[in-house]
Amino acid sequence: MLMDIEELMGFAKRVGLFWPAADLYGGASGIYDYGHLGASIKRHFEDLWLSYFVERNDNYYMIEGSNILPEKPLVASGHAAKFNDIIIGCKRCKTHFRADVLLADAGIKIAEGASVEEIAAVVKEKGVKCPRDGGELGEPKAFNMMIDVMLGPEKKEKGYLRPETAQSVYLNFYREFQVLRKKLPLGLAIMGRAYRNEISPRQGLYRLRELNQAELQIFFDPEKWEVKLEEPHYKMNVVPYKTGEQIVMNAEELVKAGYPQFYVQHMVLIDRFYRKILNIPKEKLRFFEKGGNDKAFYNKVHMDIEADISSWGGFREIGGLHYRGEYDLTSHSKGSNQDLSVSIDGRRFMPNVLELSFGLDRNVWMLVEMFYKKSAEREVFMLPTFLSQYEAAILPLQKDEAMESKAERIYDSIKKRYRVFIDYSGSIGKRYARMDEIGTPYCITIDFDTVDSKSPNYETVTIRNRDDKSQKRVKISALEKLLDAAKALPAE
Amino acid sequence: MLMDIEELMGFAKRVGLFWPAADLYGGASGIYDYGHLGASIKRHFEDLWLSYFVERNDNYYMIEGSNILPEKPLVASGHAAKFNDIIIGCKRCKTHFRADVLLADAGIKIAEGASVEEIAAVVKEKGVKCPRDGGELGEPKAFNMMIDVMLGPEKKEKGYLRPETAQSVYLNFYREFQVLRKKLPLGLAIMGRAYRNEISPRQGLYRLRELNQAELQIFFDPEKWEVKLEEPHYKMNVVPYKTGEQIVMNAEELVKAGYPQFYVQHMVLIDRFYRKILNIPKEKLRFFEKGGNDKAFYNKVHMDIEADISSWGGFREIGGLHYRGEYDLTSHSKGSNQDLSVSIDGRRFMPNVLELSFGLDRNVWMLVEMFYKKSAEREVFMLPTFLSQYEAAILPLQKDEAMESKAERIYDSIKKRYRVFIDYSGSIGKRYARMDEIGTPYCITIDFDTVDSKSPNYETVTIRNRDDKSQKRVKISALEKLLDAAKALPAE
Repeated sequence: MLMDIEELMGFAKRVGLFWPAADLYGGASGIYDYGHLGASIKRHFEDLWLSYFVERNDNYYMIEGSNILPEKPLVASGHAAKFNDIIIGCKRCKTHFRADVLLADAGIKIAEGASVEEIAAVVKEKGVKCPRDGGELGEPKAFNMMIDVMLGPEKKEKGYLRPETAQSVYLNFYREFQVLRKKLPLGLAIMGRAYRNEISPRQGLYRLRELNQAELQIFFDPEKWEVKLEEPHYKMNVVPYKTGEQIVMNAEELVKAGYPQFYVQHMVLIDRFYRKILNIPKEKLRFFEKGGNDKAFYNKVHMDIEADISSWGGFREIGGLHYRGEYDLTSHSKGSNQDLSVSIDGRRFMPNVLELSFGLDRNVWMLVEMFYKKSAEREVFMLPTFLSQYEAAILPLQKDEAMESKAERIYDSIKKRYRVFIDYSGSIGKRYARMDEIGTPYCITIDFDTVDSKSPNYETVTIRNRDDKSQKRVKISALEKLLDAAKALPAE
Repeated sequence: MLMDIEELMGFAKRVGLFWPAADLYGGASGIYDYGHLGASIKRHFEDLWLSYFVERNDNYYMIEGSNILPEKPLVASGHAAKFNDIIIGCKRCKTHFRADVLLADAGIKIAEGASVEEIAAVVKEKGVKCPRDGGELGEPKAFNMMIDVMLGPEKKEKGYLRPETAQSVYLNFYREFQVLRKKLPLGLAIMGRAYRNEISPRQGLYRLRELNQAELQIFFDPEKWEVKLEEPHYKMNVVPYKTGEQIVMNAEELVKAGYPQFYVQHMVLIDRFYRKILNIPKEKLRFFEKGGNDKAFYNKVHMDIEADISSWGGFREIGGLHYRGEYDLTSHSKGSNQDLSVSIDGRRFMPNVLELSFGLDRNVWMLVEMFYKKSAEREVFMLPTFLSQYEAAILPLQKDEAMESKAERIYDSIKKRYRVFIDYSGSIGKRYARMDEIGTPYCITIDFDTVDSKSPNYETVTIRNRDDKSQKRVKISALEKLLDAAKALPAE
């Protein structure tokens, strides 16, 4: 289904997913709040991410880092000097633009890492003008995207809001390595916020000033990390940097093409997460390799995880898989004057890092785009059960004491183990529609037969399936088993 | 057990609970990171808090708000003008102090809401000098504790890091009220970060510049909220403002003394949470009523939830229960020029707010203080099972292929349903000690009998209880039932 941002945002506001922060006051640019439905789906997605990428590995853990960091580590990491966008202002209306966005909107493609001089040359050569008022553009300049804060009674202690959660992990590596008995690989994950002073924040949870990330950093011994290819013939969509063309390659072929085996196995893991667990269609997902100026110089291999999101105009980044080498620990060793190398079996070396990075907001947006279906007849949010706010709704067919009290008894008996909602108000059709819209996969209806001891269907209810609207009659005693099956994760 | 901050921090660092952020670079004042153990306990505490205070109420929900807020709502809420501490600087060494902390350290007690003039008078009268170098103190002055950020390409868009999560809720009330079918009471909760430019941050997760809160705002109709006293004879420790003396009162007596019934019932809920669920000793918890200058003027009833924390020097605030009246929605109605009153059954009114506020970091600190027990013989962290990182450890008694492979099979069979850890390395005593220290309540040991088909104890394991070190032998097939019972929440 093709959607645009307004349509999706309209749905999001109507059902309690997300909306601009402080919209009571006109909103804040590039900053969003999650309503109750969005917060619930986000937390379930986080739980899923944790259990899939972190908890099933014996030496992988979640930690939590502060959002404010002092200046020094961000000087050491290179962010203070290099976490820049190039901006360009209109001499007439004084509006500032991100140079790459300005040029892209003018139909001019430039490399992500293009320099101030290169951009100045392109602007001059193509005669680009201000898209707002046609005014002449000034000189492009580097603009640091970090948001700084001044602390202390005289506001002299400079800090930054962290630009990525990863830095909090690097700062904690040496301590966790000690506490966790000096074993590698060691995985440390953070789910949390990061902040960027985006010049051109866009609608639709894409380019945010305050964003949520889920990042896993795996520290490993580059000489000894043996990672098996679990499915050598597992196929993925890849756009290699060399050719720039999207092709299908299996894991074995990728290794033969020179990508490290541990890297490829993690591509498979990620791909399986989206396709097998979340049921994202094959053609909607790909790995897009960055190289040359488009990739950070310290990354040895860098692929974006891209999903095809019609409301964003096609394939867009929702995460990344980065073989970062030893850059991070080396930088912080220098910056802090503390040697972060490790010694294992008599050999001293700097652990390397493989980073799995996911934009949580972008992933939530993607889920809405993929699973919200609108037709002339109805709107339905076909979320996987393990992400939905409720696993089931309990609905007495009509205003009737016997039905209502039966409904309540069922509700009370299962609410400790399942996420259930009970709803008495409105016609049954209206209540079905409400549950469709917020993604509740099952409606359990209590009707005449349920409470009629003479009926052959006494003590049975109907279960309505959200996706195909089919209904079947089951015994009340069988409900828990059905719900257990429904909320189980799919086999990979 | 009496503890000091250094001792508790030492334990916290050793086992992976928490430590100063960026301590690789010397740390950041008043800002902490959670290590893997602390992050795990914190998330379990959040889940518990959510299920106890939020999820079992049909019209209560969690939402998520941005950490950066624009300026306007914080002008409307009064924070821009009034969220002040009074600071005082030394004329000689230029160090700044929080006036109340400076005076308290000098043994002088003043009201929380004392004015600049009152403090200036006290300093003069008592001849207070700089505690650092004895220098003369300058004039006290109001200092706004919010941390501001400047956004946009020219850094002209002023914002603040939110000083409390509550504001994010008030900003979202009107929208959620619409989405959630215009029913009261409506409860909206946020678990998230808040920021304050504390002048005198102290060690021990107490006075933080970046803190985690769990706050529930209940919006209700002041004329119609009927809340039953579930246990009229439930006793609590209370320090009423009128007398300032700690006494024991039951719920009914509190209502008779004039506290609103809905307020008292929520005191009971909170008290039960700490005593019955978390098993905090009766004498360690009390409600401390604030009044006069010590309470915010808009609060109709204000009690701090206090726990007796030896490492902080006695009873300290870990949360609060605030009947805030209609102040918040009225302020934002004025600030935003949007009427936030509601109309129900033909009557228009401004919903009132009851706020349940908890400092998550302070609660985590309290859990460590309450459950970490150190003796000459051993160190043990007697956390309730539902908060612990692992529910059980699986330990083959010694290096032996049969035991190890049996251990692995048990591990594989239960790890999907339970949080379990498998540990092969070190003597069994050392492994027990490690599990004691991080709070794992059960150690399941696989020994000779477990794998000896001729033994009468074939296919049994020993289960060691962390708290009393008792061991009993059980069938492997009975393990799941035992673990289920162990992790269940206690009956209230």
